[in-house]
Amino acid sequence: MVIRPEGYAIWESIQRQLDKRIKRLGHVNAYFPMLIPQSFLTKEAEHVEGFAMECAVVTHSKLEKDSGNQLQPAGPLEEPMVIRPTSETMINHMFSQWVQSYRDLPILMNQWCNVMRWEMRTRLFLRTSEFLWQEGHTVHETEEEAEQETLRMLDTYAEFCEKVLAVPVIKGRKTNKEKFAGAVHTYSIEALLQDGKALQAGTSHFLGQNFSKGFDIQYLSREQKLEHAWTTSWGVSTRLIGALIMTHSDDQGLVLPPAVAPQLIAIVPILNKKQDDTEVRNTINQLLSNLLPKDAIKIESAHNDDIEKYIIDENTNQQIVVDYRKHRPGDKRYYWEKRGIPLRIEIGPREVESRSCMVKRRCDDTRATMQIDDLTPDWLQDQTNTIYNLMFEKAQQFTQQNTRTANSYEQLKQLLEEDAGLVRCYFEPNDEIEKIIQEETKAAVRNIPFDQTDDLGTCIYTGNPTTTQVYFALAY
Amino acid sequence: MVIRPEGYAIWESIQRQLDKRIKRLGHVNAYFPMLIPQSFLTKEAEHVEGFAMECAVVTHSKLEKDSGNQLQPAGPLEEPMVIRPTSETMINHMFSQWVQSYRDLPILMNQWCNVMRWEMRTRLFLRTSEFLWQEGHTVHETEEEAEQETLRMLDTYAEFCEKVLAVPVIKGRKTNKEKFAGAVHTYSIEALLQDGKALQAGTSHFLGQNFSKGFDIQYLSREQKLEHAWTTSWGVSTRLIGALIMTHSDDQGLVLPPAVAPQLIAIVPILNKKQDDTEVRNTINQLLSNLLPKDAIKIESAHNDDIEKYIIDENTNQQIVVDYRKHRPGDKRYYWEKRGIPLRIEIGPREVESRSCMVKRRCDDTRATMQIDDLTPDWLQDQTNTIYNLMFEKAQQFTQQNTRTANSYEQLKQLLEEDAGLVRCYFEPNDEIEKIIQEETKAAVRNIPFDQTDDLGTCIYTGNPTTTQVYFALAY
Repeated sequence: MVIRPEGYAIWESIQRQLDKRIKRLGHVNAYFPMLIPQSFLTKEAEHVEGFAMECAVVTHSKLEKDSGNQLQPAGPLEEPMVIRPTSETMINHMFSQWVQSYRDLPILMNQWCNVMRWEMRTRLFLRTSEFLWQEGHTVHETEEEAEQETLRMLDTYAEFCEKVLAVPVIKGRKTNKEKFAGAVHTYSIEALLQDGKALQAGTSHFLGQNFSKGFDIQYLSREQKLEHAWTTSWGVSTRLIGALIMTHSDDQGLVLPPAVAPQLIAIVPILNKKQDDTEVRNTINQLLSNLLPKDAIKIESAHNDDIEKYIIDENTNQQIVVDYRKHRPGDKRYYWEKRGIPLRIEIGPREVESRSCMVKRRCDDTRATMQIDDLTPDWLQDQTNTIYNLMFEKAQQFTQQNTRTANSYEQLKQLLEEDAGLVRCYFEPNDEIEKIIQEETKAAVRNIPFDQTDDLGTCIYTGNPTTTQVYFALAY
Repeated sequence: MVIRPEGYAIWESIQRQLDKRIKRLGHVNAYFPMLIPQSFLTKEAEHVEGFAMECAVVTHSKLEKDSGNQLQPAGPLEEPMVIRPTSETMINHMFSQWVQSYRDLPILMNQWCNVMRWEMRTRLFLRTSEFLWQEGHTVHETEEEAEQETLRMLDTYAEFCEKVLAVPVIKGRKTNKEKFAGAVHTYSIEALLQDGKALQAGTSHFLGQNFSKGFDIQYLSREQKLEHAWTTSWGVSTRLIGALIMTHSDDQGLVLPPAVAPQLIAIVPILNKKQDDTEVRNTINQLLSNLLPKDAIKIESAHNDDIEKYIIDENTNQQIVVDYRKHRPGDKRYYWEKRGIPLRIEIGPREVESRSCMVKRRCDDTRATMQIDDLTPDWLQDQTNTIYNLMFEKAQQFTQQNTRTANSYEQLKQLLEEDAGLVRCYFEPNDEIEKIIQEETKAAVRNIPFDQTDDLGTCIYTGNPTTTQVYFALAY
């Protein structure tokens, strides 16, 4: 997977805004080695079962030419190493050296890095062998504190997805079958994509004492007793880019929520090749002098017939651009439309006379003629709020409209066959039964949502009485 | 190498400030795969010679248990892959698919990532197998434009080192022997560390058409001819953390330049364990209400007897902290001193009465008694400027005092034996002779500095007339 600049700018924006939230809660960032000795992996029994099958294995430390002048791996390692599929083993190994007393706790750490899981069936941004993510790892004195941390981070992820990406999510707990390999339990946020499949958009794991026992993380307690610590881990990845693309896009291409759009506005001069562009350029420059903040930074471009770029805030790196390329106006319109830029402003010779322009909003396809003097930073702020609200409401409606209820296994199968989407039903989680259902329907329990009632129902599979409701869906 | 939070915060600060400079110049960030097929490496002849000997090689895609229940590498790959030692091969492979016409040029791209070079002798931050860096890669229509880009980025690195890290550097060109494997020529910035060794702090490579020919990056020119493009690459790494540590530290520990210090001020209450701390806490809170910006964010800590942290700017993540831990005052002083925090403020019961405090400046060990009402954001800004100036001047003086001139090879050897440091002399670069000199003195040509005169001198080794002056030094 190559993440090209338009996509990577979205990731940088996600990183910056999520990192602030992580730091506000007292976590600190650090960096741990990418290569994990094979023996580390085996220290937690479930963990190794979950990850050994998809590890990139480093076995040699150089390449050498053989007699046929072909490069061959050489310098075999005494112990193979794997490229981290996730860093619990490496980080908890270090924690065991850093924790002695309750005074050393809590440790609240986070890492932004690349990880690798060898995948047979990849799908851009949703399932790739290498991906970028953050992984938080924390150590606590008590079970309660670790559990609180797990939930606090799930809430942070949910708030981030909904408020920044405008992606509605369902918070809940994974079933035993679907939890993280090595966790006591796993919480997730699940998003419903427009193709009716669900996407696990983020997870937060309560690891109990599994890793602290495997890696010997012990501390002297306030009562002067040696105790095993309680740990958590939690992460979101470049998969979030997939989530926002598949939540908001339409037939014309991407639709980006303003908070992560690399460009907020694309200004498109409407000129044919032979027309003199002096007047249009003048009007656009007047528009820019109203709209740009005083400390906007113009990026010098190599060519006059190029895209002119203004960074409107160096901390967010968001830009307003003017597309002076000598392409047909229709091509330029489509170029910015398919990239999902929230606002497009068109100015041609006709608009010059009336000092007006046409403003096109990407998310709901509305157009408005406006006076260029009315396009101020306040107007832009107002527009971005409006666009966010429109996008979030639309996505919420979609999720509601594609969530149904099943009262029997037959009905679950029928609903899933009729149409993808979420199906809510009473169900007692059970590894064996979930396997059967997945084989028969291809759907899995996405999570046991937090919004349970105390009402008693009937498990759709066993017919036993239960209060537990779950969401089934096809998933990536 | 584990980069712990104090060190990683410095890297984040370097990233943020350098990234702004890179983007202002029109570069865009992207992300390319970490694993490079072995066959890619061989497409540029010098490049593979330079890097094959230090590559981590991935040969398998999973681990499986053998009959003895031990994990073994399994799923052998058809073609081995290496973890990127640098990404010219991967990125130029992609460029060849993106470039068709002169209209696609220039491409100005940058990547922040981890890289791996298997090292036998590692040294923390200066030479480690895995390290973090940015690598810029650009493609141009003309030789001149590529050469300009190479120099522009060298200037950017030099300005960054001097203005942000307060590390003086010497700009120059590497000799043929010392250039990057695959470059036509390499420019570097070199810093002189306090142990008298030089450190290559950043490099910028003019790659000519070497990679565009190896990877077939061709474009249709303005004259409708198919031409090979001209490429560059340039990078700095976590080594910069080593550079700033070894430029500014003293016997008490680190001394951090304010622009990258994770904490600007550590406030240390001076109390013995039995004293009531109410009054001191009140005074410190008054001090904070003057000093903190209105939008400062307090990080909630788990314990009352902990370090209280205030983020004073979420974009820089810099903090002001109050150390309420129940340690001995001397231990707390030393704790912040060795971490190099630019300013320490001490307040004890005596200071409470006079609403004063003791301000200690780390870089020059000066102390001043100040009224707490005088400690304002403006005062802090003023102090950080002063500290930067003091640190940069001191480092510049050190470099000047440890730079000497040699008029003969005998004198070069003598000077290097007497004391480490830089030696400037007339020398005609020559691969063979440089090898001999390195064997005999352990020193190498650091670079051919830009500040040449046209004066004719005598090459210290061959005795031939030459105008070329170089710097020799021991190096990391």
